Amino acid sequence: MIFFQEEVRLPSFVRGFHLITDTVLKAMPQIKQVSTGMLTVFIKHTSASLTINENADPTVRTDFESHINVMVPEDAPYYIHTYEGPDDMPAHIKASLMGSSVQVPVTQGRLNLGTWQGIYLCEHRNNASGRSLVISCFGH
Amino acid sequence: MIFFQEEVRLPSFVRGFHLITDTVLKAMPQIKQVSTGMLTVFIKHTSASLTINENADPTVRTDFESHINVMVPEDAPYYIHTYEGPDDMPAHIKASLMGSSVQVPVTQGRLNLGTWQGIYLCEHRNNASGRSLVISCFGH
Amino acid sequence: MIFFQEEVRLPSFVRGFHLITDTVLKAMPQIKQVSTGMLTVFIKHTSASLTINENADPTVRTDFESHINVMVPEDAPYYIHTYEGPDDMPAHIKASLMGSSVQVPVTQGRLNLGTWQGIYLCEHRNNASGRSLVISCFGH
Repeated sequence: MIFFQEEVRLPSFVRGFHLITDTVLKAMPQIKQVSTGMLTVFIKHTSASLTINENADPTVRTDFESHINVMVPEDAPYYIHTYEGPDDMPAHIKASLMGSSVQVPVTQGRLNLGTWQGIYLCEHRNNASGRSLVISCFGH
Repeated sequence: MIFFQEEVRLPSFVRGFHLITDTVLKAMPQIKQVSTGMLTVFIKHTSASLTINENADPTVRTDFESHINVMVPEDAPYYIHTYEGPDDMPAHIKASLMGSSVQVPVTQGRLNLGTWQGIYLCEHRNNASGRSLVISCFGH
Repeated sequence: MIFFQEEVRLPSFVRGFHLITDTVLKAMPQIKQVSTGMLTVFIKHTSASLTINENADPTVRTDFESHINVMVPEDAPYYIHTYEGPDDMPAHIKASLMGSSVQVPVTQGRLNLGTWQGIYLCEHRNNASGRSLVISCFGH
């Protein structure tokens, strides 16, 4: 087995959903050495998350942000963890709904994504600084 | 390490939640060769998803569909990605809530699922054609 | 490759969100032997789940429970799977929203979590008995 792991620091993104597939691939050029395997991306934060969704029309990412703000509103009367600002507690819940990692099969040295799939960074805070990812790629 | 990977095309399913554990096992007979490992199922689409839930009473799957349609309604006034039909944007959001992959431990050549667990295909579109899965199984 | 797998039985937890990072580490001391790898925790149940979120202020976990009860209420008029009690069907849906496994990179014999990240057991039933986890750790 070969097992590669890289830690990468993303620049600051505005609140919302952002395509980072190219960033992930650039940080893990060793993927070309893996003929059959898996790639995992893990985010080391609790108010930002990762998911896989449509890579083409940016309105999909806009609608994700609109809807998740309805599903997990700010200023819910029952929140007690409020001292880090109104966007903080919703950010934690959104992060767990989307998830802290994505798993993608690797086939013949490439991510075996569907045609329309891309990896999203989901930034749930208003003013976050950069985010750290751990990218692991293994197989043979 | 041994690492197996198979791509399988599912037939078209109606919108809703469907058990596919047997289909997964049939597509990956090599699981019997893995004494300690993991199996990952990945769906190559952004409007269908995978999850693990109850494998017995079909009313659980009916209630999943009823509730997810309330959590992620069609025709929300803020959707702007609407040109692929009213079921399209909700399908994308539902797909990310459920997830694009499931991970299951493999023990003694078998999926180490709980008694009541099964793998669900979650079809979020009204009229989807078949869906493609990549099944990976590795360990020793 | 080295591949370790342990099955562990958690004691009964009250409904809500609970930190179990230390329990996971205690059950998998072999993690120290893995310099580059992954750890996966899988829960063998369909009415409890796993996620990664804030490990410090317990009010975050309280607010998770408050909000998920609003997102997935009991006694929704469309539930038909009701014979196991009002907390049962919501528990299934919550379990799929949070997920049945978490994946964490392993680096230099340690979980490579962010400073504020911990592993949560999400208990969605009112009166559950203990829960079984399968912990897998692999790499080299």
